[in-house]
Amino acid sequence: MAIRVAVDAMGGDRAPAVTVEGAVRAVKASSGRLQVQLCGPETVVQPLLDSFGAPPEIEVVQAPEVIGMGDSPVAAVRTKPDSSIHVGLRRHKESRADAFLSAGNTGAIAAASLFVLGRLPGVFRPSITTLYPTTRGVCTILDVGSNMDSRAEHLVQFAKMGSAYARIMMDIAHPRIALLSVGEEPAKGNELVRTTHEQLLNIVDLNFIGNVEGRDILHQKADVVVCDGFIGNVILKFGESIMTAVPEMVQQELNELNAKPDEVALIKEVLSRLARRFDPENYGGGGPLLGVEGEVFILHGSATAGAVEQCIKTAAQAAKANLTNAIQKALAP
Amino acid sequence: MAIRVAVDAMGGDRAPAVTVEGAVRAVKASSGRLQVQLCGPETVVQPLLDSFGAPPEIEVVQAPEVIGMGDSPVAAVRTKPDSSIHVGLRRHKESRADAFLSAGNTGAIAAASLFVLGRLPGVFRPSITTLYPTTRGVCTILDVGSNMDSRAEHLVQFAKMGSAYARIMMDIAHPRIALLSVGEEPAKGNELVRTTHEQLLNIVDLNFIGNVEGRDILHQKADVVVCDGFIGNVILKFGESIMTAVPEMVQQELNELNAKPDEVALIKEVLSRLARRFDPENYGGGGPLLGVEGEVFILHGSATAGAVEQCIKTAAQAAKANLTNAIQKALAP
Repeated sequence: MAIRVAVDAMGGDRAPAVTVEGAVRAVKASSGRLQVQLCGPETVVQPLLDSFGAPPEIEVVQAPEVIGMGDSPVAAVRTKPDSSIHVGLRRHKESRADAFLSAGNTGAIAAASLFVLGRLPGVFRPSITTLYPTTRGVCTILDVGSNMDSRAEHLVQFAKMGSAYARIMMDIAHPRIALLSVGEEPAKGNELVRTTHEQLLNIVDLNFIGNVEGRDILHQKADVVVCDGFIGNVILKFGESIMTAVPEMVQQELNELNAKPDEVALIKEVLSRLARRFDPENYGGGGPLLGVEGEVFILHGSATAGAVEQCIKTAAQAAKANLTNAIQKALAP
Repeated sequence: MAIRVAVDAMGGDRAPAVTVEGAVRAVKASSGRLQVQLCGPETVVQPLLDSFGAPPEIEVVQAPEVIGMGDSPVAAVRTKPDSSIHVGLRRHKESRADAFLSAGNTGAIAAASLFVLGRLPGVFRPSITTLYPTTRGVCTILDVGSNMDSRAEHLVQFAKMGSAYARIMMDIAHPRIALLSVGEEPAKGNELVRTTHEQLLNIVDLNFIGNVEGRDILHQKADVVVCDGFIGNVILKFGESIMTAVPEMVQQELNELNAKPDEVALIKEVLSRLARRFDPENYGGGGPLLGVEGEVFILHGSATAGAVEQCIKTAAQAAKANLTNAIQKALAP
């Protein structure tokens, strides 16, 4: 049976153009194994879909309201119950869709997911999880913004959930789990990290390798890096800026070197390959919201059609592998 | 009169070779305006200095003990009162040197500075401050590791001290001070950041431009970025890894492209220019420990002779400009 993915057609800076295009690309590539439900105002989404020939595997689900990127998440979740985010999540809740994804307002997606789907039994706080390209593959980092001011028991759950995610979705038998700190020694770090470190040492079935430092992320010293959502979000965004700052710095150097256009061709090619590495399109399209009762994926607001296509496939893979079930098992005492 | 800088000859991964060489280079470039006191075991330092011809502007100050990079800071400060760090700081305390610098154990430098020099009146916590290269110059970031679990009043002092530093040492008349957070809105962030934001709005004489995000640092959206020492340290080390990870990624792409050796010459040149940008040698050599009663500078453990040379000049500049006095004025209520 085909996997059914509900997509927030209105989420993201370039929606609905890229969400509709991404959905069309995903179903065309799936040979009938994938169905997509595009949630959004019919009058907006249907004509766009028609312009792509309206493949039979894609259905438009009416959702008259739209939550803006700048809307207050809590207020929006309360006042726009028929938003494309709510409608998509309800389809998933009612088992009419097997997964949901959105490139919209991250806070609103997280809040609406809690409201509509609820959290898995025993979960303190769901966690926004991201994948990050390294010199040796892709690192999973959580939390990256769902929880400010986390407690140690939250971070311990993030470690368990991140481990299950890497096992199921990244195909790593015993993912190396690390705690982000300022030194390898257990006594290094702030109070939160020191307490969490002690607790993680006592978790069986967790390949906890200890603390890693900021410099270890890009070199994939761990498969899963656990941190508080405040620091995770700062790191994530700092990381994003590498691929805007480095090309700018390279251009400044080329200007000083008076490099000829034909000489810089190889540099441009290498830079565009680096940019592709850092493009979420090439590592899953988006990251999961772990800890809620369902398969929810969040894309970057600047997601391209390629990232949407990829994230639909990732969400379908999660649904097929029953990721949520694995997360729940990993959390069981 | 010449400025006298006490240098921990034994601090750093490549000490004393690079500290002695850096000192020799600094005094040779100074036309007699600079004197250096190399603190360390005479039997080790003097022969090295002799090998450089022992310039008259450099004196060796006997310090029989050495604090290792891996020593516990608090224990080392207590058990090694005649370490090269202590001896150098005492020279400064006794006004026999105008500034002190070290590339040694950062925690021990901070602890010994507090012990020997003490903090400026009213200072809650001294702050380790770093300079970071951006697309448009150099950004000052503090705290980067002196204080885990800071309180709002600590961050407010960091903002005031950072502002004075940028004004005096970076020659910026009205430095733009920003608070590191997860969004521009004052309500975004963890409790520490939200409280600090409110307090910073009330400080007159401070060009507080609000919150910046992780992605804004490399693009120099602010001249001074204020944060808790835990996150500052993680960011600093993540930033350091850019210049190890990016060249590795570039090499991987070049391998895939089967680029010819002559084609990659320009790429190697650009990469080495980027590496120079990120080399502390090119932006002050090291950063200050702000909030103590004296001019103390800390270099990276991997400091080169060039970085030591540069940091000696920076420390001399701070002493000449009476940086500590400016910091104290900035902190006055």
